[in-house]
Amino acid sequence: MLAASTLADVARLAGVSTATVSRALNAPARVRQATRERVEAAVAALGYTPHFGGRALASNRTNTFGAIIPTMENAIFARGIQAMEEELSERGVTLLVATSHYDVAAEARKVRALLARGVDAIALIGHSRPAETLELLNARRVPHLLLWATSEAAGAPFVGFDNRAAARRMAELVLDHGHRRIAMLSGLTADNDRAAARVAGVREALDARGVALAAENLLEIPYDLDAAAAAAVALLRRAPRPGVVVCGNDVLAAGALIGAKSLGLRVPADVSVVGFDDIDLAVAVDPPLTTIRVPHRRMGRAAAQMLCAMVDGETVESRAIDVELMLRGSLGRAPAGS
Amino acid sequence: MLAASTLADVARLAGVSTATVSRALNAPARVRQATRERVEAAVAALGYTPHFGGRALASNRTNTFGAIIPTMENAIFARGIQAMEEELSERGVTLLVATSHYDVAAEARKVRALLARGVDAIALIGHSRPAETLELLNARRVPHLLLWATSEAAGAPFVGFDNRAAARRMAELVLDHGHRRIAMLSGLTADNDRAAARVAGVREALDARGVALAAENLLEIPYDLDAAAAAAVALLRRAPRPGVVVCGNDVLAAGALIGAKSLGLRVPADVSVVGFDDIDLAVAVDPPLTTIRVPHRRMGRAAAQMLCAMVDGETVESRAIDVELMLRGSLGRAPAGS
Repeated sequence: MLAASTLADVARLAGVSTATVSRALNAPARVRQATRERVEAAVAALGYTPHFGGRALASNRTNTFGAIIPTMENAIFARGIQAMEEELSERGVTLLVATSHYDVAAEARKVRALLARGVDAIALIGHSRPAETLELLNARRVPHLLLWATSEAAGAPFVGFDNRAAARRMAELVLDHGHRRIAMLSGLTADNDRAAARVAGVREALDARGVALAAENLLEIPYDLDAAAAAAVALLRRAPRPGVVVCGNDVLAAGALIGAKSLGLRVPADVSVVGFDDIDLAVAVDPPLTTIRVPHRRMGRAAAQMLCAMVDGETVESRAIDVELMLRGSLGRAPAGS
Repeated sequence: MLAASTLADVARLAGVSTATVSRALNAPARVRQATRERVEAAVAALGYTPHFGGRALASNRTNTFGAIIPTMENAIFARGIQAMEEELSERGVTLLVATSHYDVAAEARKVRALLARGVDAIALIGHSRPAETLELLNARRVPHLLLWATSEAAGAPFVGFDNRAAARRMAELVLDHGHRRIAMLSGLTADNDRAAARVAGVREALDARGVALAAENLLEIPYDLDAAAAAAVALLRRAPRPGVVVCGNDVLAAGALIGAKSLGLRVPADVSVVGFDDIDLAVAVDPPLTTIRVPHRRMGRAAAQMLCAMVDGETVESRAIDVELMLRGSLGRAPAGS
C-alpha cells in the first residue's frame, strides 16, 4: 500500500501553508479563488484524504466541537473554556458545552449525545473515566483532547499542567513559612484526578521534610463555599489549632477565610490559608489568596488550536503549561507555638 | 377543519395524566407496557399529533436542548444554567450550552448552529436581539424560552425577574441610608437589556426623591473585576467623593471594593458599595455585599420544566420570580458631609 499523502504534501504542491489548505477545504469562502483552485488541484493530484477516516473531509464537517466539563459553577473551568470558545469562534467553529457533575457515567452519556449530534471533535477534562469512553471516541475516529491533564491516554493528547508538582511547590512554600501544624481542605478525590494529584503533591512535600498530615486534618468536600466555611470551622476548632489550611482550590480557600473569620481568627496572624487556580475570587477576598496561577486562557486557546489541527488530520504534540506561585496576603509566618 | 386533539384529550381517553402521555411518547421504556398500549390506542383513536408541527413527535426527538448565554465567565449565568442542566438530566435530556459574548449577531449564528444539530428546544437570555432570531425559531417551530427576562416577545414565554424594579428597590435602600452623592458602575448597556434596566431602575428611584445621578458619575464597563477596580478608583478620586457606588452586578461591586481599598478607603465608613445577583463572590468578599438575591436555581429549574412541557406540545405560562434584598456589611450610613 502506498503511503497516504498528507496535508503537508498538499500544501507543498500547492505552494501554500498547511493552514491555508485547511481553510480552503473547510471554509472555502475565506480563501481567494485562485488559491482555492491551486489547493483543489493539489488535492486531486495527490488523491489526498485527511487522516480521520473521512470525518475531517470538508463535506462531512459540522464545524461544531463539543466540550464536557465537570461543572459550570464557581468559575473553575469557565475561563479556560471561554478562551477555547473564543479561539474556535474566530475559526468559524461553534463550541457546545455539556456538564458531567464529576460523574464518569454522565460524562459517557454526554459523549454519546455529542457524537449523535455530529460534532467534529471533543474536549474532555482530566483522566478519571472508564476506558470505554476513549475507546468509543477512537472507534468513531473523532479527534479528542484532554484538558487539565498531564499525560496522554489511549492515544489522546493533552494540554494541561502538573497538579501534583504545583501542589508540592505550594506545600514547600508553606513549610518555608515555618508551618508544621498543617490542615488540608481537598475537593472530592473520587472521579477527580486533579483533586487527588493535589493531595498527593502536598503529602510528598510534607513527607520529604518529615512533617505529618494527620488523617483528621484532611477533609474532602465538594467545591462549595458554604461547605468549605463549615469544614474550616471544624478544622480550626481542633486543639492544637492548625496554623495553615492548604486548600484544593480557591473556592475552598475563600470558604476557609469565611470560616476562620467567623471564629474571630485573623488571617494570616492566627491562621494562614492558601488556594489553587487564581480565579477572580482569589484577589476579591481579603486578604487576597496566596495561590497557584493556572494559565486558563492559554490552555483554552491551545486546546482550540490543537483540536482544529487534529480535525485537519494533523498530528499534534501534547503541551504542558507552566503554572506560577502567587504570593499574597493570606499566607504568613506560622503563629507562635507552632 | 376539525380542532386538533390535544395531549389532554389523549390523557383523558387513556385514563392517565398528561405527564404519563408525554413519557409514553418520549421515553416509552419508562412506562409500563399496559399503560403504553392504552396511550398508543388513544393516540391512534384521536389521530393525535403534538403541537409543534411534528417536531415533538417521539421519533423526531433528539432529547437535546440548547441554551445560549452571553458568557461563561464570572458565574453570572452559571448557577441558573447548571440548575437547568440538572433538571433536564433527570429527564434524560442533554443540555448543550453555547456563548454569544453579548453579541446579538453571534447569538443568531449559535441559534442556527443549534438548529443544524437538531436540538428540540432552545433557551435564550433576555430581550436584546434582532426580530429575525425569534422569527427563525417560530418558523422552524422549535420551542424556545427567554430566561432573565420579564416580558414575552414574539410569542416566546419568559421566566425571570424585573431588573428595573429590583434596581429601584436597591437605590431606595441606598437613599434610606442617607446617601445623596451617588455613583454607579454599570455593565455595558448596548445589547444587554438587563444592564440597561438596572440603570433605569436606579434613575427612577433617584428622580422620585429629586437626587441627581451626575453624568460623570455613571460609568459603563465590562463585567470584569480589574476593569471595575480601575473604574471605582476613577470615581472615588472625584471631589466631592461619592458616598456610595451602586454596581450593576456583584462582579463590579467586588471590583469596586478592591478599588476603594487601594485608595485606603474603609467600606462602609468612607464609602458604601452595593451589588446585584448574590453570587458566591458577594459573601466571599469583606465586607460582604449588600445585594439583590436572584433565585438562579429556581429560575433554571423552572426553565427546564417549561421547555419540556413546550416540547410535549403544552402551553406554558410565563413566570416572574421574586428577588430579595440582602442587607450586608458593604452598605452603611452616608459619610458625614454628604
